[in-house]
Amino acid sequence: MQKMAMLYEGKAKRVYETDEDGIYIVSYKDDATAFNGLKKGSIVGKGAINNRVTNHLMGMLQKQGIPTHFVSELNERESAVKKVRIIPLEVIVRNIAAGSLATRLGIEEGTKLASTVLEFCYKRDDLGDPLVNEYHIRALGLATDDEVQRLSEYALKINQILLSYLEEAGISLIDFKLEFGLTDQGELILADEISPDTCRFWDIKTGKKLDKDRFRRDLGDVEASYHEVMQRLLGNV
Amino acid sequence: MQKMAMLYEGKAKRVYETDEDGIYIVSYKDDATAFNGLKKGSIVGKGAINNRVTNHLMGMLQKQGIPTHFVSELNERESAVKKVRIIPLEVIVRNIAAGSLATRLGIEEGTKLASTVLEFCYKRDDLGDPLVNEYHIRALGLATDDEVQRLSEYALKINQILLSYLEEAGISLIDFKLEFGLTDQGELILADEISPDTCRFWDIKTGKKLDKDRFRRDLGDVEASYHEVMQRLLGNV
Repeated sequence: MQKMAMLYEGKAKRVYETDEDGIYIVSYKDDATAFNGLKKGSIVGKGAINNRVTNHLMGMLQKQGIPTHFVSELNERESAVKKVRIIPLEVIVRNIAAGSLATRLGIEEGTKLASTVLEFCYKRDDLGDPLVNEYHIRALGLATDDEVQRLSEYALKINQILLSYLEEAGISLIDFKLEFGLTDQGELILADEISPDTCRFWDIKTGKKLDKDRFRRDLGDVEASYHEVMQRLLGNV
Repeated sequence: MQKMAMLYEGKAKRVYETDEDGIYIVSYKDDATAFNGLKKGSIVGKGAINNRVTNHLMGMLQKQGIPTHFVSELNERESAVKKVRIIPLEVIVRNIAAGSLATRLGIEEGTKLASTVLEFCYKRDDLGDPLVNEYHIRALGLATDDEVQRLSEYALKINQILLSYLEEAGISLIDFKLEFGLTDQGELILADEISPDTCRFWDIKTGKKLDKDRFRRDLGDVEASYHEVMQRLLGNV
C-alpha cells in the first residue's frame, strides 16, 4: 500500500489517501492539545501508544460485533483504516462524573452516575464543540434520526464491552468520546481512536488518572501513565 | 381567599400560601433581570401585563386540552394558581434561531430552523441553567422518563397551538420557555408564566422584537412593546 496525499491534519493525527480504493492511512502524532487548542505540548511516545491501544481495542470490539474502520497496523504509529465520511458528532459516554460534566452540572468529580450518560457534541472547534440533543441534530442535519438511534446503541454497547474488558486490566472507565463515520457503501462504523487521549482511565484501586487529564491538569507522569495503559492492555510491547 | 406567608420570591414573581388547600397566589413584579441576574432593572407595568397575558394564554390552552395551574385572576397583578412542586427543568421550544441557540450553534439569528427544537435546561441559577438531555435528567433524578416524555409532548403541542394563535395577532413565535409542576395528586400541569418575559415575540410583518430582548439588548421601547403584545392578545384593556 502506497501513502499518497495528506487529506487532513488534526490535533493528534494525520490522514492520508492511499493507492488502495476505500483505504486511508492514519498517522498518530505525539502532539497534545487541550482546552480546544489553548494548551499545546507534546507527549513523547503518545502517537505510537495511541496507535497500538486503539488498534487493540478496535480489534477486540470488532470481534464482539461492533463494526470499526480498523484494517491493519502498518508500523509503530500508522494504521490502515477504512475510508469514511465522519459524522460531525462527538459521541460521549459517561459512567462517573468528571471533566466538563462535573463542572456543568455541579457534580463532584468521581461521583458514580446513577445511570449511564450519553451525550452528543457538535464537532465545531470554532464553537467549542457544543452539547446538542436529537432535535438540534435533526434541525442542523448532522445525522438522520436512524443514525442517531444506531450511534446511541453502538456507544452504549461499546461502553458495556469496554467497562468489563478494562476492569480486568485494573482500569476504571470513567468516560470516553467516540466518532463514527459512513463508508461509501453507507455502512455506519466506529472510526477515530480509543486511547488515553479520548478516554478517562483511572486505576481501579488507587484512582490514579492514567489519561490525558495528566497533561491537561499538569499532574506529571504523563508519558509513564500512557505507557502503563498500553502495558496493561497489550502486555510488554 | 386569604393571602398568607410568602413561600418564594423569584426574579419576576412572588408566590404566597393561601388559606385554601392546594391554592397559591402568584404576584407579578415589574422587576426585570437578564443574563442570569447580571443585568437588573424594571419595566413599568410589566407585572400587570405578564399576569394578564399569562392568564389569557393559559385559559386558551386549557380549553385546548392542556392542563395548567391557572385558577383565577384576582387583581391586576395577582392570580390564584394550583399548588405544584415545580419540576426543575426549563422546557424550551424553538421555531427560529435566536439568543443562546444562535450563539451556541453558530446559526444567524432569524434563521428558520429546519425542524422544531426542544431543549431541557436544568434550573440551577448557580450553574447558569445548563442544557441537559434525557440521560442527564435520568442520572440526576430531575424527572422520570415518563415525565420527560409527557413534558415533550405537551411542549410541542403548546407550540402548535401558540404558533397559530399568535399568528392571528400578527406575532411570530420565535421561541419560548415553559415550566411544569406536579400537583399533590401527581398531575403534571403547565405552571409558571407565558409572557414577553419568557417568549420571543416578533412582529410578523416588520420583525420588530416585542419581548424581553428589548430590555436585554437595550433596544428601547420596552414598556410600549409589552403593552403592544397585551393589546394584540386581549384588545384594549
